[in-house]
Amino acid sequence: MKNVDQNTITQAVLERMGDMPDARLKTILTSLVHHLHDFARDVTLSEEEWMHAIQFLTRTGQKCDDKRQEFILLSDVLGLSMLTVAMNNQKPPGCTEATVFGPFFVEDAPIVPLGGDVAQGAPGQPCTVSGRVVGSHGQAVAHAQLEVWQADEEGFYDVQRPELHALQARARLQADSEGRFHFNTIVAEAYPIPTDGPVGELLRATGRHPWRPAHLHFMIKAPGFETLITHVFRNGDKYLESDAVFGVRESLIADWVKQPDGNTQLHFDFVLNESHD
Amino acid sequence: MKNVDQNTITQAVLERMGDMPDARLKTILTSLVHHLHDFARDVTLSEEEWMHAIQFLTRTGQKCDDKRQEFILLSDVLGLSMLTVAMNNQKPPGCTEATVFGPFFVEDAPIVPLGGDVAQGAPGQPCTVSGRVVGSHGQAVAHAQLEVWQADEEGFYDVQRPELHALQARARLQADSEGRFHFNTIVAEAYPIPTDGPVGELLRATGRHPWRPAHLHFMIKAPGFETLITHVFRNGDKYLESDAVFGVRESLIADWVKQPDGNTQLHFDFVLNESHD
Repeated sequence: MKNVDQNTITQAVLERMGDMPDARLKTILTSLVHHLHDFARDVTLSEEEWMHAIQFLTRTGQKCDDKRQEFILLSDVLGLSMLTVAMNNQKPPGCTEATVFGPFFVEDAPIVPLGGDVAQGAPGQPCTVSGRVVGSHGQAVAHAQLEVWQADEEGFYDVQRPELHALQARARLQADSEGRFHFNTIVAEAYPIPTDGPVGELLRATGRHPWRPAHLHFMIKAPGFETLITHVFRNGDKYLESDAVFGVRESLIADWVKQPDGNTQLHFDFVLNESHD
Repeated sequence: MKNVDQNTITQAVLERMGDMPDARLKTILTSLVHHLHDFARDVTLSEEEWMHAIQFLTRTGQKCDDKRQEFILLSDVLGLSMLTVAMNNQKPPGCTEATVFGPFFVEDAPIVPLGGDVAQGAPGQPCTVSGRVVGSHGQAVAHAQLEVWQADEEGFYDVQRPELHALQARARLQADSEGRFHFNTIVAEAYPIPTDGPVGELLRATGRHPWRPAHLHFMIKAPGFETLITHVFRNGDKYLESDAVFGVRESLIADWVKQPDGNTQLHFDFVLNESHD
């Protein structure tokens, strides 16, 4: 195939992939090539703009390390993450909704017993979190495993503090035989997603703020149930209507109630969907 | 905007960019968000596939350094580079056609006088290259600046040889007052694009070969003319019909003529388009 032009090249690329053994990969790449080429044609992408995009993507990859995932952040602010979550987590009514995973999860978080301290020194106002994990028929999910992670009162996750050599404000817990859990932590506050990288450039160029409303991240796993990746958002936060990553679900907003003793209490029950694998 | 679903999220993202000051950027990002979301919906992208894509793009960025540009390579094999070149280089009949830039250009190549040695020790059979740079009316382009770069007989550019601490088989030359140039180098051979990175993974997964037909790269600049980025391809090469990056133009194929003395000669004239800025 010689002398492809701006229109014939799409078919030329697709024909080259004609012998692909993986049918699913072929479906994905066929659609990707169509949309990528259509995008470039739709906007009549200039060579300078093409090079700018190459450099932007390169910087995005190079901003990533074991504590920073700038491509997830890019996917988040472009709405691709929430779109993917929405498509893949259509659960029966009553089940807890899913939302974005975000870029700050860490494997092997500290194991904390029920009633233990998740904050581990992270700065913030004291907060007690409790709740129950149940199935879609209300049955207890005994010994469900919960991963919880959150930002501190200055808006940082532990992995965003280069001076910090320990994990803070994240933990793995196990619910009791009735699916109940409780732990001590700090009050989550609204925070800006990191803006010192390419995604920050994009937000500034597009006139967008980087803020996320205050939330706790949860990932809940139990045998026989679909893994739930979600947040609990703090009612009253001023960014609930304009989350930088489009992750807010009405059903995930809860009251974080300040008690007379200064402690804040959050109660939230999670309803898992039975897996059908 | 709360509770976006897989369809309403597209409009939610676009509305968030409503105050963007740069109209061109708004055009580009609006199209990008539409196509990116449509792609994800068309294939019902799974969360596992999404994460695979995140990791692929991350590795692509991290493969880049001052001598390797894996995102250009990715754009090349997906046909996006040639599409962009084709859209932006529609020249009057008779002008030399453009083709892809490729990932191996280096700024500040050695300056070589006319008749000088471009190879600088790169392995290969001797080759003399000559030609003339003219405008679209046949007029000489006096003192046009030519950048030339090529692979050696083992299929490597200098920057692909980690043990090499000098530049080889690349140079900057200046045509004479009649637009003429000539230099000594080595015969270009077909070579595979680098397959030790994510782009290599993609080619293997899609059953595609990584070969490019033998060619010399040229970038030619002169005041009053559009910069020309192109190749001269070697007639008879078996990969002319299946260039891994879709860059072959019939008009850029030339005879590389072996002489009785063992030297190979290539003659090629370049016709620049007058710039209209």
